[in-house]
Amino acid sequence: MSALILTTYDWVPEGPRGLVRDLRVRWALEEAGLPYRVESTSFHDRGPEHFAAQPFGQVPWLTDGDITIFESGAILLHLAEKSPALMPQDPRDRTEVLGWVIAALNSVDLPAQPWALFRFMGFPRESPEAGFVEAFLKARLERMEAVLAGREQLVGDRFTVADLLMADVLRQVDRFDGLTEYPACHAYVARATARPAFVKAYRDQMAHFAAADAA
Amino acid sequence: MSALILTTYDWVPEGPRGLVRDLRVRWALEEAGLPYRVESTSFHDRGPEHFAAQPFGQVPWLTDGDITIFESGAILLHLAEKSPALMPQDPRDRTEVLGWVIAALNSVDLPAQPWALFRFMGFPRESPEAGFVEAFLKARLERMEAVLAGREQLVGDRFTVADLLMADVLRQVDRFDGLTEYPACHAYVARATARPAFVKAYRDQMAHFAAADAA
Repeated sequence: MSALILTTYDWVPEGPRGLVRDLRVRWALEEAGLPYRVESTSFHDRGPEHFAAQPFGQVPWLTDGDITIFESGAILLHLAEKSPALMPQDPRDRTEVLGWVIAALNSVDLPAQPWALFRFMGFPRESPEAGFVEAFLKARLERMEAVLAGREQLVGDRFTVADLLMADVLRQVDRFDGLTEYPACHAYVARATARPAFVKAYRDQMAHFAAADAA
Repeated sequence: MSALILTTYDWVPEGPRGLVRDLRVRWALEEAGLPYRVESTSFHDRGPEHFAAQPFGQVPWLTDGDITIFESGAILLHLAEKSPALMPQDPRDRTEVLGWVIAALNSVDLPAQPWALFRFMGFPRESPEAGFVEAFLKARLERMEAVLAGREQLVGDRFTVADLLMADVLRQVDRFDGLTEYPACHAYVARATARPAFVKAYRDQMAHFAAADAA
């Protein structure tokens, strides 16, 4: 088996470090114990080769033999097919995992990312627009709280790629203290990010960008 | 084969008609020629059975034998596995389709839906928050325009579930005249929505909600 190659930026500013989406792919690779190496693409100069691999000029992408995969959510689903550590075998469980993966990307990240970006930009929290985004996010978090109050994982009694992604999406909300009213969501993120595979992935991303500072 | 059952609301207000997400599932079922029937769940009373099938209390969900699938994006991926009309057989093409499906849900819908909701809410377009969301969306549309200026479909030379979903996501932008500066995106949506399967799906959704008005 040829090694998987994960490509991320050579450098990013301080702000997004720890949130760049190669992290969730590193995390999945570590959970699965799949061999991989990390390569860099220029943050400042995004040329035709970058756009050929990632149509939006973003990161990450994964190279698996002669296949290149973009979108971190798609990469996670691709990796999940390679490892029982990420995906159960039972067909009903597999369908449920797929549902929660898409829920993380579309139902939860969709309000969570604008909410976090508004905080990052320092927009006033009282504006009608900020209030709208906050209410949108809260509607989702209330439902996630109800789900997670009753169980430790989203599907069955084990950690899956659905938990990895949902926890990573909720982590960006937690970073701006958006889970204080949602103790089950907060505890869920805390449990997920205490896993050795996350700790290694986080440390590796921080070291990757710090090395670029030193270079 | 037992018929697939698509569940949507019994009624919705005028505003979202034509955009409720059972439409993209109807569309996929029509493209694939899969037998299905539509059932209703109460828009006004969302009880435990609704939340058991759809954890966010939304629609649609699909019942396939003893499996229930929520999230329209997950339903589309599930259906794509049942029909070559939606998903190519070549492994590289399949991976590319998966990438574009996730791109539609997370890279494009993520700014498109807040942008469309801000328009729907009538928020002023000059606020810093609206400007931020608009710039976020434009960054994605510029890249989609570059991609679609060069080809008619996202993957290979044929329509796939990736086009169905991307066109449906861009359609909500078009509805608020957000594609006027993006002629390739606009033409792409026009081509997709001229397909007989879309026309039938749209007409069927409108008739479903109109029947509730009359009842």
